Amino acid sequence: MSQSKVSAYLLDHREENLASLFELLRIKSSAHDSPQDYQRCAEWLCDRLVTDGFTAELLTTADAPPYVFAEYHTSDDAPTVLLYGHYDVQPPDPLDEWITPPFEPEIRDGRIFARGAADDKGPVFAHIMGIEALLKTTGLGVNLKVLIEGQEEIGSPHIEAFLSEHKAKLRTDTLVISDSPFYAANLPSMTTGLRGVMGVEIITAGPNRDSHSGVYGGMVTNPVNALAKIIAAMHDDTGRVTIEGFYDDVVTPSDEELESWKLVPFDEKTSAAELGLDSFTGGEQGFDPLYRNWTRPTLDCSGIAGGYPGPGIKTIIPARANAIITMRLVHNQNPDKIFTSLQKFVAAHIPAGISSAVKQHAAGRAAVFPTDSRYAKAGMRAMQQAFGKAPAWIRSGASIPITEVFQRKLKLNPVMLSIGLPDDNVHSPNEKLDLDMLHKGAEMAAAFYQILAG
Amino acid sequence: MSQSKVSAYLLDHREENLASLFELLRIKSSAHDSPQDYQRCAEWLCDRLVTDGFTAELLTTADAPPYVFAEYHTSDDAPTVLLYGHYDVQPPDPLDEWITPPFEPEIRDGRIFARGAADDKGPVFAHIMGIEALLKTTGLGVNLKVLIEGQEEIGSPHIEAFLSEHKAKLRTDTLVISDSPFYAANLPSMTTGLRGVMGVEIITAGPNRDSHSGVYGGMVTNPVNALAKIIAAMHDDTGRVTIEGFYDDVVTPSDEELESWKLVPFDEKTSAAELGLDSFTGGEQGFDPLYRNWTRPTLDCSGIAGGYPGPGIKTIIPARANAIITMRLVHNQNPDKIFTSLQKFVAAHIPAGISSAVKQHAAGRAAVFPTDSRYAKAGMRAMQQAFGKAPAWIRSGASIPITEVFQRKLKLNPVMLSIGLPDDNVHSPNEKLDLDMLHKGAEMAAAFYQILAG
Repeated sequence: MSQSKVSAYLLDHREENLASLFELLRIKSSAHDSPQDYQRCAEWLCDRLVTDGFTAELLTTADAPPYVFAEYHTSDDAPTVLLYGHYDVQPPDPLDEWITPPFEPEIRDGRIFARGAADDKGPVFAHIMGIEALLKTTGLGVNLKVLIEGQEEIGSPHIEAFLSEHKAKLRTDTLVISDSPFYAANLPSMTTGLRGVMGVEIITAGPNRDSHSGVYGGMVTNPVNALAKIIAAMHDDTGRVTIEGFYDDVVTPSDEELESWKLVPFDEKTSAAELGLDSFTGGEQGFDPLYRNWTRPTLDCSGIAGGYPGPGIKTIIPARANAIITMRLVHNQNPDKIFTSLQKFVAAHIPAGISSAVKQHAAGRAAVFPTDSRYAKAGMRAMQQAFGKAPAWIRSGASIPITEVFQRKLKLNPVMLSIGLPDDNVHSPNEKLDLDMLHKGAEMAAAFYQILAG
Repeated sequence: MSQSKVSAYLLDHREENLASLFELLRIKSSAHDSPQDYQRCAEWLCDRLVTDGFTAELLTTADAPPYVFAEYHTSDDAPTVLLYGHYDVQPPDPLDEWITPPFEPEIRDGRIFARGAADDKGPVFAHIMGIEALLKTTGLGVNLKVLIEGQEEIGSPHIEAFLSEHKAKLRTDTLVISDSPFYAANLPSMTTGLRGVMGVEIITAGPNRDSHSGVYGGMVTNPVNALAKIIAAMHDDTGRVTIEGFYDDVVTPSDEELESWKLVPFDEKTSAAELGLDSFTGGEQGFDPLYRNWTRPTLDCSGIAGGYPGPGIKTIIPARANAIITMRLVHNQNPDKIFTSLQKFVAAHIPAGISSAVKQHAAGRAAVFPTDSRYAKAGMRAMQQAFGKAPAWIRSGASIPITEVFQRKLKLNPVMLSIGLPDDNVHSPNEKLDLDMLHKGAEMAAAFYQILAG
């Protein structure tokens, strides 16, 4: 069987591939680094893909670092796949917590330690390893387009414009992304849904200056107290958000998906203990914690300020206060509709003597991905082949807004092929990728393209 | 009549007195200035009182600037009066808003402009002028003790210890303080009550670090939302404080006092307009604004902080939040009792998953002063004599905690003889005292001591 040829090739080229990945990991590409560093990183990827037989180029939009775009054509009849990844990495601080320097990769205990090892240079390189192995043995079998950007860690501010601009060039049948970990070690995982995020600022204003709490106390309505009343009113006693229509468009996952979650080894006590808590007491009563986090929209005050909070006291009625509300919205909720409803809610709760402003900040939409498409099924088979176990379907309470942008702009549902483990220290000191995950990730990538080639 | 001799003396010595007051105003004594400056100021007052025939000394407690203490003995049968004032002044910033420099007194339009002109060097000096005029003409007629401190503007942190330490030395029959203004021009005013102040900090804590609002939203109870619920619950919809027993010990003023307030030209629209407001919407429904401010206890959040309030957003569930609550308590309320009740209130409103701490900050008690004592009556007669009009009884929503300390430590009720006007720019740039107020203030002081002498 052809897979064995591919596996043999990968086994034969482990040293070479590792040396090559280490080159990539040595190139700095965090927000602290220079445009020249980003350029070098993008060029390295371009050169590597050209060496493998791709046509490749660097594309730019606005002042974004270059987008690596590469293409390999097999035949007009073969399916066309878009592989998305990113070459930028999180800043490495605090540096003194790294055992070995972040941009000097080192192997210890079967793990590669370096910034970007797991997020996302390692997984991107696993695909390159798999692709090369196919090209050198059985052939790739699919048409492949590769897009690797340099701004994912700062929220991909130009990706929407880039996708619009290069729509024709990026036309493909499916999309594969390897930029999220397994839910647990030994639990291959396929992410099938992510929540969106919306930030809203609420400002309350009262007297035209901080005024004396003795001279005016009992006469002037206090904008901090008023803001507290507004925020307090946003949840009822069961933890339910009281903003009108907030839950109207929430969709319940399918029975099949709910059934699959029984495989997920979520343990409330263990997970809560990581935050120094006994249990998870937040969110709506009547749902399990994991269900609340994966499928229910939430509303949290992520910041508040007003007056003088110490040290010591200032005897004032503050002139103003503000709060940032962070909402995690779910699939099928419309952030603009929720924002309008929240504006009305605030207006209805503003007392006499207080004026208010409500501003919308960032909004990234939630997304769910089908599990029954031929592409998703190919992904699941590939994971089973490489890791010896069918993947669990998982969701995330967090957001990867690019996934919804790909859906909306290119009509592509991502197949989320995880490479990496929850303890990879992504965004933290001592980021790592297990060698085993790298090698099996390359096998998985090769298997995915082979299966699609049919 | 003897008053005319005193008046004639004061008229004859206007130039001399002004020159002398200017010397005092030139000596810097704000929190920005050096211990040497404070020392010079205290010594100047000491020397002046010695020149007038007093025995005087500088006393110290802890690391406080010197207290000026002076004494004049008339006879064992005469009543003994304690005059309290302060020689420290507010820092003069912002300096560039002063028309002439704060420590270079200048007369413009019949007003002395200088830091300390009205608060409190000018009024203290008016007493010295009146005392000297009596000593040089009819005799003082009373035994007089003078206490002038240097820490009033920072809350008199050592006055309680000082009064305890020098209790015997400070034993007198009554106390006079001139450190508050008329309620309005042409409305001589005698303050008969002040609110107290108590600061309380409430801290709520949840997860052991700021945690990701996506990964944990819907599971972790948010300490900012919890704090908002607590603060919101502290008032009902009618503006009444809901803490148990909050109003239990509140005493209603006498009908006579309430009747007297009809003289007070309080205009809600004018007063609210100073803060850019249309009307006074704060405090308890069912009471007039001035009544709320003068006689009702209040609770205001004077500061709040938690998480990241901008610019931009941080998608976190904050680890903690804190708020400072400033209460203005009224006569007969016990701050310790209220604090205990507030602690219970917070404990009862803390949701699962949140821990809390409640800390008491500063507490200064409210005070009311009798209006029917021979000393208060002498004060009223003296004001009428000097200003041609009986004083209105007024209260203040603000606090002068030393008054309650004098009551508690020395069993002395202060007679509050106002010298100054509401537009004196106390604590602001271009502080001033009208020459007319200075001269009439000296007449009032002389009249007060004469009336007490009988």
